[in-house]
Amino acid sequence: MSADPGPVRWNADGLVPAVAQDADTGEVLMLAWMNREALEATLREGRAVYWSRSRGRLWRKGEASGHVQEVVEVRLDCDGDAVLLRVRQRGGIACHTGRRSCFYRAWDGTGWREVLPVLRDPDEIYGGGGE
Amino acid sequence: MSADPGPVRWNADGLVPAVAQDADTGEVLMLAWMNREALEATLREGRAVYWSRSRGRLWRKGEASGHVQEVVEVRLDCDGDAVLLRVRQRGGIACHTGRRSCFYRAWDGTGWREVLPVLRDPDEIYGGGGE
Repeated sequence: MSADPGPVRWNADGLVPAVAQDADTGEVLMLAWMNREALEATLREGRAVYWSRSRGRLWRKGEASGHVQEVVEVRLDCDGDAVLLRVRQRGGIACHTGRRSCFYRAWDGTGWREVLPVLRDPDEIYGGGGE
Repeated sequence: MSADPGPVRWNADGLVPAVAQDADTGEVLMLAWMNREALEATLREGRAVYWSRSRGRLWRKGEASGHVQEVVEVRLDCDGDAVLLRVRQRGGIACHTGRRSCFYRAWDGTGWREVLPVLRDPDEIYGGGGE
């Protein structure tokens, strides 16, 4: 299958933001970044592959944690500069903090309050290393 | 109410990506950008206010279209560099193309296919102008 992402508009760093959403529950799990290679790999492999800006390399989500995101559908927005992945989140944990979603803080009127529990200790997920 | 967004990590342009999600259906509607002023206004006013990169000014979503996003909840991610808005979308149309969501193209294995209908003619929404 061809995986030329065509009309995607990459930013000055060659990246687009990619939002991962649980395909079953609709919960927004995380926002990460993709370069062309990451998007092509995602389309080809059917699992979420991002570009890690901190590590400067492709990041196959779940490569260390096992928390792979199986891709159900990939969407592109009207301007071609944002991607939406509808995924099945293996392990039910997207966040490196051990929470279901990275968006675990909610504004309560005066500050950010944690609203999602830690489901698994990150040390246990990563064995002391990161993803 | 204080609206100091605290631990938000702005990028080199002073922006963070903000994802808007329908609070009732879970549908991801759009991705836009916020600077500090936009986020503070959103928290204060309870409606989505973005920073328009193309126009270089604050953009009160719906200011031209009437398609205001009433904010139910604002979330911040683990790294503090992405925001999630859970909103009620007035008019049921988030996209300037007249569709419910900006993410109306899906990858079909060889290209991007439109999967959401135009609900209202953009000319009718904007009277020939943009938002």
